[in-house]
Parts: sequence; structure tokens; C-alpha cells
Amino acid sequence: MFDKLKEECGVFGIYDVDGHGAARTTYYALFALQHRGQESCGIAVNDNRDIFVQKDIGLVPDVFTEPVLNRLTGHMAIGHCRYSTTGNPTRENAQPLVTKYVKGTLALAHNGNLTNSNKLRRELEHSGAIFQSTNDTEVITYVIAKERLHTKTVEEAIENAMDHLEGAYSLVIMSPQKLIAARDPDGFRPLCMGKLENSYVFASESCAIDAIGATFIRDIDPGEVVVVDEKGPRSLRRHCGKKPSICIFEYVYFARPDSVIEGASVHQARQEAGKYLAIEHPVEADIVVGVPDSGLDAALGYAKQSGIPYGIGFIKNRYIGRTFIQPTQGQRETSVRIKLNPLASAVKGKRVVMVDDSIVRGTTSKRIVNSLREAGAKEIHMRVSSPPFLNPCYFGTDIDSRDKLIANNHSLQEIRRHLGVESLGYLSIENLRKIPVGAKCHFCEGCFTGKYPIDVDEDDQSKNIFE
Amino acid sequence: MFDKLKEECGVFGIYDVDGHGAARTTYYALFALQHRGQESCGIAVNDNRDIFVQKDIGLVPDVFTEPVLNRLTGHMAIGHCRYSTTGNPTRENAQPLVTKYVKGTLALAHNGNLTNSNKLRRELEHSGAIFQSTNDTEVITYVIAKERLHTKTVEEAIENAMDHLEGAYSLVIMSPQKLIAARDPDGFRPLCMGKLENSYVFASESCAIDAIGATFIRDIDPGEVVVVDEKGPRSLRRHCGKKPSICIFEYVYFARPDSVIEGASVHQARQEAGKYLAIEHPVEADIVVGVPDSGLDAALGYAKQSGIPYGIGFIKNRYIGRTFIQPTQGQRETSVRIKLNPLASAVKGKRVVMVDDSIVRGTTSKRIVNSLREAGAKEIHMRVSSPPFLNPCYFGTDIDSRDKLIANNHSLQEIRRHLGVESLGYLSIENLRKIPVGAKCHFCEGCFTGKYPIDVDEDDQSKNIFE
Amino acid sequence: MFDKLKEECGVFGIYDVDGHGAARTTYYALFALQHRGQESCGIAVNDNRDIFVQKDIGLVPDVFTEPVLNRLTGHMAIGHCRYSTTGNPTRENAQPLVTKYVKGTLALAHNGNLTNSNKLRRELEHSGAIFQSTNDTEVITYVIAKERLHTKTVEEAIENAMDHLEGAYSLVIMSPQKLIAARDPDGFRPLCMGKLENSYVFASESCAIDAIGATFIRDIDPGEVVVVDEKGPRSLRRHCGKKPSICIFEYVYFARPDSVIEGASVHQARQEAGKYLAIEHPVEADIVVGVPDSGLDAALGYAKQSGIPYGIGFIKNRYIGRTFIQPTQGQRETSVRIKLNPLASAVKGKRVVMVDDSIVRGTTSKRIVNSLREAGAKEIHMRVSSPPFLNPCYFGTDIDSRDKLIANNHSLQEIRRHLGVESLGYLSIENLRKIPVGAKCHFCEGCFTGKYPIDVDEDDQSKNIFE
Amino acid sequence: MFDKLKEECGVFGIYDVDGHGAARTTYYALFALQHRGQESCGIAVNDNRDIFVQKDIGLVPDVFTEPVLNRLTGHMAIGHCRYSTTGNPTRENAQPLVTKYVKGTLALAHNGNLTNSNKLRRELEHSGAIFQSTNDTEVITYVIAKERLHTKTVEEAIENAMDHLEGAYSLVIMSPQKLIAARDPDGFRPLCMGKLENSYVFASESCAIDAIGATFIRDIDPGEVVVVDEKGPRSLRRHCGKKPSICIFEYVYFARPDSVIEGASVHQARQEAGKYLAIEHPVEADIVVGVPDSGLDAALGYAKQSGIPYGIGFIKNRYIGRTFIQPTQGQRETSVRIKLNPLASAVKGKRVVMVDDSIVRGTTSKRIVNSLREAGAKEIHMRVSSPPFLNPCYFGTDIDSRDKLIANNHSLQEIRRHLGVESLGYLSIENLRKIPVGAKCHFCEGCFTGKYPIDVDEDDQSKNIFE
Repeated sequence: MFDKLKEECGVFGIYDVDGHGAARTTYYALFALQHRGQESCGIAVNDNRDIFVQKDIGLVPDVFTEPVLNRLTGHMAIGHCRYSTTGNPTRENAQPLVTKYVKGTLALAHNGNLTNSNKLRRELEHSGAIFQSTNDTEVITYVIAKERLHTKTVEEAIENAMDHLEGAYSLVIMSPQKLIAARDPDGFRPLCMGKLENSYVFASESCAIDAIGATFIRDIDPGEVVVVDEKGPRSLRRHCGKKPSICIFEYVYFARPDSVIEGASVHQARQEAGKYLAIEHPVEADIVVGVPDSGLDAALGYAKQSGIPYGIGFIKNRYIGRTFIQPTQGQRETSVRIKLNPLASAVKGKRVVMVDDSIVRGTTSKRIVNSLREAGAKEIHMRVSSPPFLNPCYFGTDIDSRDKLIANNHSLQEIRRHLGVESLGYLSIENLRKIPVGAKCHFCEGCFTGKYPIDVDEDDQSKNIFE
Repeated sequence: MFDKLKEECGVFGIYDVDGHGAARTTYYALFALQHRGQESCGIAVNDNRDIFVQKDIGLVPDVFTEPVLNRLTGHMAIGHCRYSTTGNPTRENAQPLVTKYVKGTLALAHNGNLTNSNKLRRELEHSGAIFQSTNDTEVITYVIAKERLHTKTVEEAIENAMDHLEGAYSLVIMSPQKLIAARDPDGFRPLCMGKLENSYVFASESCAIDAIGATFIRDIDPGEVVVVDEKGPRSLRRHCGKKPSICIFEYVYFARPDSVIEGASVHQARQEAGKYLAIEHPVEADIVVGVPDSGLDAALGYAKQSGIPYGIGFIKNRYIGRTFIQPTQGQRETSVRIKLNPLASAVKGKRVVMVDDSIVRGTTSKRIVNSLREAGAKEIHMRVSSPPFLNPCYFGTDIDSRDKLIANNHSLQEIRRHLGVESLGYLSIENLRKIPVGAKCHFCEGCFTGKYPIDVDEDDQSKNIFE
Repeated sequence: MFDKLKEECGVFGIYDVDGHGAARTTYYALFALQHRGQESCGIAVNDNRDIFVQKDIGLVPDVFTEPVLNRLTGHMAIGHCRYSTTGNPTRENAQPLVTKYVKGTLALAHNGNLTNSNKLRRELEHSGAIFQSTNDTEVITYVIAKERLHTKTVEEAIENAMDHLEGAYSLVIMSPQKLIAARDPDGFRPLCMGKLENSYVFASESCAIDAIGATFIRDIDPGEVVVVDEKGPRSLRRHCGKKPSICIFEYVYFARPDSVIEGASVHQARQEAGKYLAIEHPVEADIVVGVPDSGLDAALGYAKQSGIPYGIGFIKNRYIGRTFIQPTQGQRETSVRIKLNPLASAVKGKRVVMVDDSIVRGTTSKRIVNSLREAGAKEIHMRVSSPPFLNPCYFGTDIDSRDKLIANNHSLQEIRRHLGVESLGYLSIENLRKIPVGAKCHFCEGCFTGKYPIDVDEDDQSKNIFE
Repeated sequence: MFDKLKEECGVFGIYDVDGHGAARTTYYALFALQHRGQESCGIAVNDNRDIFVQKDIGLVPDVFTEPVLNRLTGHMAIGHCRYSTTGNPTRENAQPLVTKYVKGTLALAHNGNLTNSNKLRRELEHSGAIFQSTNDTEVITYVIAKERLHTKTVEEAIENAMDHLEGAYSLVIMSPQKLIAARDPDGFRPLCMGKLENSYVFASESCAIDAIGATFIRDIDPGEVVVVDEKGPRSLRRHCGKKPSICIFEYVYFARPDSVIEGASVHQARQEAGKYLAIEHPVEADIVVGVPDSGLDAALGYAKQSGIPYGIGFIKNRYIGRTFIQPTQGQRETSVRIKLNPLASAVKGKRVVMVDDSIVRGTTSKRIVNSLREAGAKEIHMRVSSPPFLNPCYFGTDIDSRDKLIANNHSLQEIRRHLGVESLGYLSIENLRKIPVGAKCHFCEGCFTGKYPIDVDEDDQSKNIFE
């Protein structure tokens, strides 16, 4: 599976005491977070007088040209990249959202998904609110604006707003004077902090901190609000207390392997997943290959544990982008080879262990298996570095509806036959929990187990109240 | 003066019982209203399930290509073209504004300017509102949304909202079921109604009704709210009662000559202006020429009244558009000839009466006079088909600030000398009032007289509370 | 008729001893020549080391943005705007054409049409030539390149090439050291020369010379080659001798009214056409109106001669451009009103003389007449400021094929009935010849009379040997 | 080294007896060849009446949108993607080149570099030729056009033309009736043939044949001309006889690992390179990592041979494209991390063998080494899977000039110190020759040895005779 599941967003923010290149740094950081959202992106910049935003549909290098970036001067900036799970991409939903409210201007970028946003929308509408988008960001801004009417500071308003927000949210917020990061009390989505000379930065993943040459400081705690202004950073912790329940699928698929989340290396976690797969589902074979890109690390782990040689089994086209013209019906069967071509010289006549991160509907996996068979693989043993998907995610991951998840309607053997592989093995939930080595936290495993860290009113989760 | 003063907007709406080409008709209507706003434009369409909007910076034919237009299917549509008076053009300010509120979706297009929008903004902000644009349309939508909380119908909410709105507004509004037009109680800006087979249409000017092959019905009355739904149109008149105080500069400059406003032909009004100019400021001359495009009709009126032959004095470049690259400092003096070239064969050696619609700062007029002189005009007698600009407009016209209006700081003779003409004559306010022949209404003449139809708190009019 | 007939091209060139703004000046000049071609345009600039060209499909302000123009530095430039008569617009056909040949680089811009280009193409192909476009410019460049193999200078090669070229060509050519203008020995198309401080310029029409603030010097003589280099201009006259046979339709329709061609004002010529129409085809009426833009001057001439008041009968939409979406079949009848709306207040109940420059198929004229009738005109007397089109043009004008020209298949009365007018009068060929007052030259009147200044092998004129 | 060296081009052609989707298949094939050229691309299609081309600057998915592709109907097509080694990208140089010549239309796409193109240009210019581009394709077309004057068929003309062409050329040519592939007598660049149902296809690399679901048939022989028409394919072999001297750097860097060239798997060749590196330059270490993407296979080979565990050392940003904004001077040092981030969790505290394919100037390698050191690598042992670059390439590879190649001016120890690595080892030329396992051919190793398969007049190779 290499392009079915998509994380909603990546966020970034920078407060640069000395400089004026905040937007340019944000550009590089968003570029490093591009894997978290390829539909639209934006940067809001604060030049001490006003906040200006540039956002549009497209990848980071498409939306931000040199002249556009040069116009965005300021010492503070926040950025966002987004993948939308509903309908057509629209400019209206691009972030950051910049609004004027009772205390001036506010810019907000959000990763996650509120579980009570429909309820909050209805309440706000009944107090006279109008909505111009379908995203949670506008809801959150309204809640903060309401709270700001009777608080002394914007950070206080944010903490009060958090009393009303339910679900997953990693926020980066910019007021005229302050840069603020906030993470929901369960810490569903990652958010971390770094330092670049005299600048403080916040990012969804540490790989963005690396990309700009900054130094990682720490993760933002669940429930924590960190405020940076000219006096430096300070922490508000009224909502702190719970251990993080971070989305475990961040380790399996979403995050970049070079990121470190809650103290655990993503790359190492994936290798561990491969290791446990080899222990749980050993097989005699000649070569272990991963499905690029997210299956590679786990394949390496499987190879090391099993002693079967690691190999490169597929070449992925480096130029796949969103505007790619889809093959017609007749060409569908060969379509997977446009993206992913098996390496006949590596697999021909061999017993192959093929490691991928997950199976959703099974359609893509089946095509990949077929192509491997055509390239001459003698046996194919599929290993999946996560348990079967059985439940929806309410916290920002676009997993298919229950009825389309193959594991919901089919036994392991049925799936195996459907895919046409000699054997099939999923990672157990018990071992999945062990893969983030060093992480001192809980995990949200709801998509696998159906048990979510917080109560969710499932009837109120339908996305399409607006569209 | 041919590109200094700019009207803010043009609006259009259509309810088509039978058809699905509402957007295409709106396209042609906006095209006919393009002179009212060249910065951005948009069309919102209602396909019975939802309202979808397409809007962007650019002229109508730039924003709406064939595929874009084909996607906009529905039986109701509203459209807008806009000229912004403040700062850079921004997508955020493009209209129609489509919002989700307590009763579903609402689309709104607005021409005019509220005089209490800052006050309303502050009040709304103090109740928790957030603003994403700087335009009055968002303010009006909020006020309607608030009223809608305790009314049975959207039209009732609109009538209630009008209790709070002050200033100039000609609105076209689309709810899931209804198309609604509303005009402020003083009728500052024009708004009229037509019929195209089974469709009802609303437009800023009758020229748009002509362009789509529809039949003009009547002007919307000041204070009137007209609702069209499947049962046809009906009128709500709680705010009616005052005579229109329509902006008299619509007749002089803004409107297209082929429009008829409040019963008076714009073309005829301009001819009348020329006639009265000839009566007030006669002169011996060989030819009367108008400065294209808005001075042509008045020149014809002057020629007829005076008996001096009418002639064509300038050729205007037909391809002038907004993206035209401005001449550098050194080329400035000749810049006017790029847009407007005097016809030497018509004016050489002649005593020329040159008629223009207005003088703002005097800079452009001076350049035009110079070019005419270089083309060999022996004498130049400038006649202006409106009185001197002395005051700002608070109702939707972008007139310069008081200190930049040449007539505020200079006597008639000083202006004459500055322009370098043999004589200079403005139309008197008394005769200006007579030019809309057949119009049974009052006029707003505030920019000339300083007396406005309604009280305005000048201190609260500054545009830049947001930007 | 207002957008059916199209001239092929406009050309411009500048040699600026001192400056480096040659491209910018060319931009403004092309803008003034835009009426001669709206499909594609280009500027080639010479910075003393090399020649660089920028060209594309689109209007001048679309193709040349500020950054594009700023990159085009040099002391020499030539420019071109083009309307293609065949097939889709293509980048390959945009001019100027820049080529590398035996003596370095050569840039060439062409207005006109060769009558022996198919023959020349075949000859060149049989010597090994390859063609990358369908335009004559490439043919001319090959002929010059061949001649350059055995001449001492490029201008000598051009004069020799002219021995082989037949038909209409007004050329502006740029070599590494020289700017050269050349006009065919019959002078079918205009070409003139001006001076701007120390710069010499060439242009299709004098209006471009006015637009850049330069001074008109004189027309290039038929057959003349003018060379400008650091020593200033000099004239080669081996092909001179014949009087110009300039296309008389330049005066009627193509040229801008503010241009002066062969000593005759275009504006005055059109007024004269109106005058003679009034003498040839008098009628009792209340108002004389012109069809914008090219019928306006003739209407003025008719009014003056007849004593019937001149009026404005139509308002033309100022924003008509090439990307305008065409009305669907059902909307066709009203389509003319989108471009041209009759002024009811001016024509209602009146006997109207309507002056236009020509009738091609009659379709557009009929729609205009209908719209005037709907606006309330009591009688419509159409006057056409040129004789009936009966023959094709081989010299650069896109006149329809013979069978589509209404005058070829119908009598005057049939046309009158078809158009639905009370009377119809064309200008006679005898009076047409008199309208360019002061022009000491012959005219090409082939499209009216079938007699062309030079012999043409009609069988070899088909355009589509390439496409 | 991951983006410094660039192959000039990829070519593709298809003759589809039955279908009309030739252009769409070409699209997918070009997409698979995108790594061979990212600057511009094009597709020419033959619909039995004419040849139409679409080409522009940009990546394949940027240039070809769905509507553009749908317009390109026909049963034959050729395609090209290009990287230019000189100056700015220009539309003029995009391929295929479509020309009209004595026998109709000809389309040509070329990969390689002629060594006598300057000489041929001069000769052609002296016979009257004009050039509109700087690429060899135009030269080749001229030579074929000349030969076609006295041959019976286009393929005969191509064979005759090959008498004059020197250097590297893999050509795909389309005439009105035929699709033709031709490869220079030394076979410098790859070119192969496949079959897709009733279609025959030619491609630079077999990965394109895989991507469209076709079956690989064989490589085109050096000197061979293969003609496909309605009767099927046939081979002309007048220039055959020499063994291929294929560019050995295709195996090291250019080609995609899943391609098979001259019978040798590229993936396997790279693994072999790693194996021999391990034999030649063993070292005690904890992990072997490759520099993505081209160093990965060799790293795997090194690991297998040495027994040191293979690991993933770097994460490459998947969204790097040509429009990426370059870091400013101050950010330069960290710039490499934007593209390539070292995996601290994999390398920290370890002795690392880092395998890359080549070193050009050393600048990028040094930055990569630095970043690895910062990530905590204890020792870094660099292994290069090719010998040092010492000489220019005249056959289509853009290798820096001699004075900029670090190996030309520095000893191995100097380079090692410059890069800051504990040890440095290049693959020997002897072992390099062994890596294409199964290839029965010679190789061009000129860039390493200075000995080229054919004589080259170095003085005539300067690129800039045109620009």
C-alpha cells in the first residue's frame, strides 16, 4: 500500500527574534513535511504590523515561487500542508486560516480531527456564526475568539477553548505578538519543538527540524500550550496530565523514517515491526523485499531477524505526482507497473518475502503481487507490518469505511487467496505496541482494536454535513 | 479622466425555473457589467442540492473558461464583478460570498458601501465573530445570520438586517430555495429587474438585461426586497417609502450609456450635460471633441446645442487592460498617448472644445491637453460635464481624499492655467440635477456639495481598520 | 462588420544608438499595432552579442510581463503581432523568426503574403530545405540565406532575394549589426519610418510612432530597402520605381484612424467615404449612426454632408477579447448584443442611417440590423463605406472564399431584403479611390474589382499544402 | 552525487496497427524515462493525414494534461524527454522536431551527441541552410532531407545520412507511413524494441517497455535501422558490424535499475560494483549505507560481499523537483539536508561504509559526509562505484570540464581529506568492466580512461558556436 492512506496535515511555526526570513525557513520545513499533505499548502507571515497569508492548491514548490516567497517578509511565520479526505480540493479549505477578531489578527494551522466539530458548528451557528469552509480550523478559531472576549491573553483563551475541543489537534497559532503551539490532552498527533540560533520552531515531525538545520528540543506534551514571544518560550500546562495516546500508525506509515516521535525513531520502529514479523511469521525464502517506500525498513528488519538476504524488489518511479493522468480501464491491470516496477533480475525464480505496511481494500496489493509473479517470483510470502484494519479513525486518518476494509469481510485465508500469495502474515497488536522503542507513552490503536482513547459519538462523525 | 474613478461593483442574479444554464447567462451579464469592476469576479450557482462558487482575480473572460463554466450547473446563480479601492487585489475579497449558517447555505453579492460597517464589525467581534475579509459583504452576511436565528424566513431576516445596515447596498442573495434582491432605503446604487422567458433576473444596470436578451421590467425600489422562488416573484416593502437618492455620478461616468436608470437614459443624460455646458460655457470654436469613452456623449450634446461641428478627437487603444506595463519615469509624459492618441488630422489648426466627465487631480487631464496641443490644436477649451469634486464619497465610489482633489486647493483660474487651456467650464450643480431626463427621484450629490442624503460619522469611515 | 476581416500582421523595429530599452519601446509600439493581429506576438532583441526572442500566443500585455520584458535588454529590437488565417494558432508560426545562418544570426518580421511562396517552398525543398512552420517568413529567410552565400552584405542579399519574392511584404529585419526595413516593389502593405531622439524606428503604421513619442519621418518607398547601423540610415533603391499600389482597404478598415498612410489620414479617408456615400445614396432620415469602431468616422462624414444629425447608435463592450466564450446555438440570435448593444434612447422611433465599413457574408450585419429594429428604429438605411467584396485577396487580407461572399451570389435588392433594411447603398469604386486625400499613389482594389496590380497564379494560392 | 550528472535524453516510439491510443502509451513510456531528462518533453503523433506535435518545457505530467493528450490521436507516435547541458531551457530545443521536407512530414527524436555537428552545421549553412535551434536533431534532419532528394525511401536516406553522422545517436523517426529506429554504429546509447499486442515499440530503456505492459524483444544493434510499417518490422544493416561500445556509465548511474541493457541487468551491475568495491577496498565497519537513489544497489552488493549489515542511512525527500527554490548563501551548508537527511538512529556511534556512484567536484559529497558526521557516525568510509572522472564526455553526458573534476587536480589522499572521511576507495576500471554481467559488448569508458571508441576532434566540440 503506497498511496491509499493519507494523513491530514503537517504544521510548522517559527519565531525569529533577529531575522526576517521566517517564511523561507517555513518553506523548507513544509517541504520536509510534504509527505503529510500534498493537496494544498500555505504560509502566514507576521511583519510586526500585520499578518499576510499565501496559500493555494498544489505542492509546496508549486505554490511558492521565488517572488512569492520574497514578498513574505516577517519575523514570525506559520505553515501548513494538507491532504483533504472529502471531495474536491478547494482553496477555501487551504490553511493557515487568518482571521480578524476582537483582539486583532489571528492565524491558525491545524493537524488532526475534532470529534465534536459538528456539535460545535451547530452551537456556533445558533449563536450567529457563519462558516466559509468545511474544516475544523474555522471551528477552533471561533471557539478561541469566543473565549478571547473574556480573557486577558490569547493563550488563556486557547486554554479555555481546549475545554470545549474534543479529539485530535496539534495547533500552531500566530497572534500579532506571539507564536503558540498547542496539543490535545491525549496527544493523538505529534508536535515537537526546536531551536535555530535565536529562533524557536514548532513542527509536526522532527524531520522538518533537521531539514532547516535546527536542533530538536523536545515533544510538546499532551495538553500543553507553549507560548513564544520576545521574552522566549513558556509553558502552560492546565490540560496536561494524561500520557500521550499517540497514533501508532504514525510509526507504521505516516511519519518520515528519519523523524523521532515521543523518543522513538520511526525508522527503528519499522525495523522492529519487521523483526517481530519474522518471529511471528517465519518462512523459508531466498530474498526479503519491501514495497517502497514505507515497506523498506520493515523488510530490512525481517531480513536481519530471519537471516534471509535483503534485496531490492521494486523500482518506484520518482516522478509520481498528483497530476498524473490515470490509465484507462483497459490499461488498469498494468497501471501498477507505471508506479512500481518489479526487479526481475532480483526476484526471478526466487521465493520472495514481500513486506508492506498495511492492506486496505486489497486491490493495490493484488496488483503488486501479480506484477511480482510476472517478474518470475516462484513463491510470494506477504508480510504486513501492522494488524488488519477493522475500524474507522476519528482522529485525522483517512481510513476507508468499515465495509470496504477487506479484513472486515474476509478471513485471513480468503485474503491470502484473493491476493494470490503462498502465505500471508500480519503483525500482532501485541508486538505492534513494542515497535516504538523508547517511547514512554500509550498509543491510539483504534483502527485495529476499535478501542479509542476517548469516547466518540459515532453518529455525529459523518463528514458531509456541509458538502 | 478615463480610468481614475472606479465604481466598486456590479451584481447579477437569475432564477431559471426550467433551465440549467443559469451560470452561462450570468457570465454574459457580468461581461456586460465588467465596466463596474475589473479586479475580480465570481459566480455562485445553485443546483438544488448545494451552492458552488467560482471566483478569482481577473476579468470575466479570464476567470471563466469553457470547462469552468460547464461545471457550474444549476437553475439559480448570482454573479459579481468588483473593483477594490484598498490595497492589493485579494482572492479573499472576491464575491459572491458563500457561507454556511444556521439554516443552510447563503450566497451574497453586494454593490455599495456601508457607512456603519466598522461599528457593526466591532459589535460582531464583541459577540465572537471572526472576519476573513475586509469587505462589507461578510458584515452583511453576519447581520443576516444573526437575524435568521429568530425569523421564519430568510427574507424576513434580510428585512430585519436592514434595520441595522446604514449606507449604500444593492444586494443579490441566494438561499437554497430563493433568489432575493434588496436595495437600501435611499437607493444609492442602481438595481433593476428583468424577465427572460420563465427566468427572472436582477442586475446593477439594464445593459446586462439587454445583453442576455431579456426584457427590462422595472427598477427595484429603494428599501424593497424582492423574493423569487418557484411561485414567482413577490415584493416586501417594509423599508420602502423614501424616494431614491441615486448617485448622480452614475449618469455622468459609472453606468454604461445604454443603461436606463430610474427611468432616465444614461446616454441622454450625458448629452443633456453637454447641452447645458454649451449653454453655461459657450465659446467660439471649430470642433467639439469628447475624451473617450465617457466624454463622447456629452461632446455630442455640446455640439448639437452650440452648432459647432462634432468631431472625433482621440483614438483610444482598444486593448488596454489591467496587466499593461506602466511606462518608466522618463516615458511618463508620453504615456497618455499609448492609451489615447489625438487625431491630428481632425484638430490641427483648430479651436477645439474638449469635453471630459470630470477632473480629479488634474494630472491626466493636463497630459491629454498637452497631447492635443502637440497635435496642433490652436485653442483648447475644456468643458467638464460635472461640477468640481470637493468631497469624499461614502457610498461606494473611490474618489480621492480631499487634499488631493485639485478643486479643493485651487481656483478655477489656477486649474485652467495648470491644465494649460484657453478656457475651462464645469457644469453647474443646478443643471447637473436636470440631466437624468425623466427620472423621478432625488440624487446623492455629496461629492460635489458635501450634503449627503443620510448622516455619516466621518471619523468612522477610515478604510484601514483591517489592513 | 466588426471582427470578421483581419489583417495578418503588424511589424516594428528600433535601432537605439544610446539606449538599452529597445524592447520596452517595442512593447508599446506593438501595443499600438495590436489591432493588426491579436493571435500571437513577439519581440527579438539584440544585445550586441546575440539575438534573443520572446514570442507566444496571446495579446501583447499577456505575452510580455514586467520580468519578461526586463530580461530583453539590447539596443536593437524588432517586434511583430500576428493574426493567422489558417487553422489553430501555433507557437511555431509566431514571429519574429530568429535563425542562425552562414553569417550569424538573423531575425525577421513580416507583414503581407507572398504569391509565389508555394513555388519557392518546393524549390527550396528540392535543394534540401526543411520547414518548421507554415508561414512565409521562413521562406523569405531561406531565400535571403541562399543569396547571402555570395553577397558581401546582408542588405545586398535582401535586395537579391527581392528578385525572387512575389506578392506583398513589409519586412523588418535584424542582423547582428544592422536594422533593415524592406517593402515590396508594389507597396501593398504600409511601412513607415520615424525618429525618437537618436533612435530610428520602423512601423507598419504611424500610430505606433505616435504612441512611443517619436516623430514621423516618411513612408518607406515601394521596393526600398533602408539600412540603419551605427552610421545612421541609408537607402537602397534597386527595386524602386513603381508607384505604391497600397491596399485601399487599409483606409477603410485595417488601419487605426489616427494613422497617416502615404500622406493620407485614415480618419479623414473614412470621413470622405461617408461624404461620398451621402452624395451617392442620400436618404431622408433623423439620425446617422456608425457601427463601432470602424464605421464611426464614415458616419460622421455622412452626417456632415447630409445635414442629418450624427448620433451614437451602439455601445460596444470594451472588454471583448479572444478568449470570450461563444454563446450556444440557442443564444446565437442575441449574441450580437453581448458585443454591441443598440442605444434605444437614441434610435427609438427614428429613421436611422446605419453606416458600416463592409459586408462579408451578411450574417453579422443582419443581426445588428435586427437588434436596431428591436431597439425601436422606424427605418434603417444601411450605408457601406466600401464597394461589394467580390474577389479573394492574395496579399495578406483574410477575405472569405468567393462562394461565401454574399455579393457574389445576390443582387443588391436580395441583400437588402436579406438584411431587412429599407435601403442599402455601397460606396462606388470611383469614389473609393478619392477617399485617401493627398495620397499620391495607386491602390490595390483587387477584392472589389478582381484586377490585381501583379499577375497571380490562382491555382498555386491554396494555403494548405502544409497543414 | 545525486543530481549533478545528467543524461541528455530519453526516446520512445510506437506503431500501433489497430489502435489510436499511441500518444497515451507514449505518455506512460516517457514517464518511465523521465529520469533521462527533466527539462522538456514532447510527443508527436501521426493520424494518417498529418503529424502533430505537442512539446514544452516541463516534466511529462506538467506538459501533458488530459485534454492535451486526448487531442493527440493517431496510430503512430514518438516521444522525447530532454535535459539540456547548455544555457537556459528553451522551447526551441524541445523535441521531437517535426519538419516539412521534400517528401512530406518528418518527426525525429534523438538521444546522444554528434561529434561532428559543428562541421555539419557549417557545411549546411554554406549550402543555404537556416537553423532555428542549437540541437543536433535539426542537423540530423537536414542531413536526412538532403539524402532524401536522391533516394527511393526514407529509410535509405537515413542509412545514407549515417555515412555523414559521427558520434552518438539513438534515433526514433516517424514519416507519414513508417516508424523507424536507428542507432549509431558504435551503439553509444541504448535503444531497444518491444511488442505490445499488435504494436511495435522502441525505447531508450527496457523499463519503459515494462511500464506500458509490453514485452521486451531485443536491443537494436549498433548501426541497425529498423523500419516498422503496416507490413511489420524489418531490419537494415548496412552500418552494422561493430560491437557495441555502450556508455558504461549507463550501468553506474543513468539507467533505471530495473532496465536491462545489452543483456545485463542494471540493478545487478550496480550490486556487482558494490561487490568488487568490497573486494578492492575492504574495511571494518558496522553498517553499509548507500547514497540514494543510485548508490543503494551498490551498497547492497558491498554489504553482501563484506558481511557488514546493510542499512538505510539517508531519507531522500520524495518531492524534490526542478522548481525548488535554492537556499541562500547562509543556508547553503544545511541545504543538503533538505534533499537528504541522514538517519541518526541508524548511524549514530557506528562505523559507516557510505557508497555513492561517483564524485564530480566533491562539493556535494563533502556536504553529505558532513551531515552524516553530524548525525553521529563515528567513522565514515566512502566507496565510489566507479573510477575517478578524468575526462570529458563527447557522447551525450554532461560531465564537468576537466579543470573542475576534483580527481584531475588532487590525489586520492587530498580528496579523502577534503571530504573528511576515514578512508576512500574508487572502483577500478578493470572491475568496472565486469559489472554488466552477461553483456557481450565493449564499453565506452572515455570519461575514466580518455580513450574513446572513435576519434574526436576536441577543438570542434565547443558547444557555444550558437549561443
